Amino acid sequence: MRAATFHGPGDIQIDDVPDPEIQKPTDAIVRITHTAICGSDLWFYRGQQRYADGGRVGHEPMGIVEEVGSEVTTVKKGDMVLAPFAFSDGTCEFCEQGLQTVCSHGGFWATPGHDGAQGEAIRVPWADGTLVAVPEEVRGDEAMLKALFPLNDVMGTGHHAAVCARLEKGGTAVVIGDGAVGLCGVLAAKRIGAERIIAMGHHADRLEQARAFGATDLVSSRGDEAVGEVLELTKGGAAHVMECVGASSAMKTAIQVARPGGWIGYVGVPHGPAEDGIDIMTMFFKQLGLRGGGAPCRAYMPELMPDILNGTIDPSPVFDMTVDLDGVPEGYAAMDQRKALKVMVEL
Amino acid sequence: MRAATFHGPGDIQIDDVPDPEIQKPTDAIVRITHTAICGSDLWFYRGQQRYADGGRVGHEPMGIVEEVGSEVTTVKKGDMVLAPFAFSDGTCEFCEQGLQTVCSHGGFWATPGHDGAQGEAIRVPWADGTLVAVPEEVRGDEAMLKALFPLNDVMGTGHHAAVCARLEKGGTAVVIGDGAVGLCGVLAAKRIGAERIIAMGHHADRLEQARAFGATDLVSSRGDEAVGEVLELTKGGAAHVMECVGASSAMKTAIQVARPGGWIGYVGVPHGPAEDGIDIMTMFFKQLGLRGGGAPCRAYMPELMPDILNGTIDPSPVFDMTVDLDGVPEGYAAMDQRKALKVMVEL
Repeated sequence: MRAATFHGPGDIQIDDVPDPEIQKPTDAIVRITHTAICGSDLWFYRGQQRYADGGRVGHEPMGIVEEVGSEVTTVKKGDMVLAPFAFSDGTCEFCEQGLQTVCSHGGFWATPGHDGAQGEAIRVPWADGTLVAVPEEVRGDEAMLKALFPLNDVMGTGHHAAVCARLEKGGTAVVIGDGAVGLCGVLAAKRIGAERIIAMGHHADRLEQARAFGATDLVSSRGDEAVGEVLELTKGGAAHVMECVGASSAMKTAIQVARPGGWIGYVGVPHGPAEDGIDIMTMFFKQLGLRGGGAPCRAYMPELMPDILNGTIDPSPVFDMTVDLDGVPEGYAAMDQRKALKVMVEL
Repeated sequence: MRAATFHGPGDIQIDDVPDPEIQKPTDAIVRITHTAICGSDLWFYRGQQRYADGGRVGHEPMGIVEEVGSEVTTVKKGDMVLAPFAFSDGTCEFCEQGLQTVCSHGGFWATPGHDGAQGEAIRVPWADGTLVAVPEEVRGDEAMLKALFPLNDVMGTGHHAAVCARLEKGGTAVVIGDGAVGLCGVLAAKRIGAERIIAMGHHADRLEQARAFGATDLVSSRGDEAVGEVLELTKGGAAHVMECVGASSAMKTAIQVARPGGWIGYVGVPHGPAEDGIDIMTMFFKQLGLRGGGAPCRAYMPELMPDILNGTIDPSPVFDMTVDLDGVPEGYAAMDQRKALKVMVEL
């Protein structure tokens, strides 16, 4: 089979790789129909994160079950399924708490021993704990599949930011970042019923999409000016801040725009020097709460999927470019050059 | 009147200072009967924190109301009262949330314009929002007054660590620090109903007091060895970690001993380089929550006072030395040299 692989900064290639095989009775093989390129893929693409030479890439799988191990009971051959960016056993104490990203036996795609999703097929460990079936009736509905797809990462991640920031109906949220996760964060905040949603970012077109997703205010300035604008708009800060970037500068902004006693949810893998970001003295004196991490998208799928199926939310506008498997290198380049916000890969 | 004042590192003196006067109709004047020296006072005493030369010191007031302003309604002349280490208006959005330490019009004792509690009397701003009356019937009961007194700081602070760490009945807590706050944290955890309470510290006598307060396990080793012990005892970390030191090394330990998905409550004013403490990557990958700050002791007094009055908890063993006002300099020296854990000042 063929799959995208990493060969150094800026160099993604499509290689022949071994077909996946069932290794454990809890495994499934999924033939990928849809995958995507993630903003977090740009860290290794840009050489800002070490990555195995020749390693498989991609962590957003959607496809058709081709084979299941003998112990798999919740999905069967022929089902269309979504898998979150992390696989999980579904039964450990952490999965039971809805924290599948810290599953005792879980892991991440495209790590040693595990397939990357930007390829023709993957072996899915813990199929029962990992996969969620897409309803049969939407199988041919490409628009709906494109709307459901972001549940495997960016939509669940945006929702996680809102959950960690303890956003509730009627609340005021600041969403930092206008990438796909930030935009999905706005959508999640709107779905939860936030009364005011302030989107912070630096790209006019993305901020307009944030407005379409439900942002009530847009802040496109930078640094202290941006912080000042938010403090003015909120008369002293927002009780719920969603840090959807994963950079120390964004965390600094989050602490500055949070209202005393407020909460910061952070969902981007942290990058940048820690001492630039976590101003613990300010957090202490503002009595802030901080919580985040890799989103347990698996936990959120059952909650969010119905609202996509019934049309309440549709995150698919985060995709502004579509390629096939051979177009994956071009997709990376487009995202790296900010010519595309997020690239869908259709196989 | 006379009061303790700061004259450089290691130099506390008892000076003549002006008598306090009612300045606003919401003020009260309280004649101090009991006050204390706090572990946090050692930061300036040791020259590790800048402090005004000649400035008043102390932030733990208990005493008798001598005079009230015309708008004060909840306390009257002659009442015995406790005041938390922060004063607060009692009516702003933050006070209404029980977050009096971020009160819109609040502040702290011994800051410019405000009296320190280690003296014969203080002016209390926002008397209605700040003071809590001690029941008339315990007025002469010195043992009970000594038990109630820590509600103004260390007992409320220990409780805040438990609240921020989201400790609930049946949970497992790690309490980092065997100072007065850590010991009160153990007592708070016991009161909440924690099934297992692991106290970490370096002083055998203090750890024995932790055991008397309800700790089920004591860890006195340091660094990686201590972390290893806690991870072994808890089979992978505790879901509730109470950082009761306020040093970056303690925060590092807190992150290391927290169970994935767990919560860290931190209540010591942070000291030490931030980059040594907040390992945001580990926090991210362990999906930890962090919350803390100066404890809103005023909010906790109504909840905790009945359990002291009925004998459920008695934090008074944190005091192992008593001095009068003239003995305050000696009290600082004893705490600095670790000859005393916490010094009560009786006037």
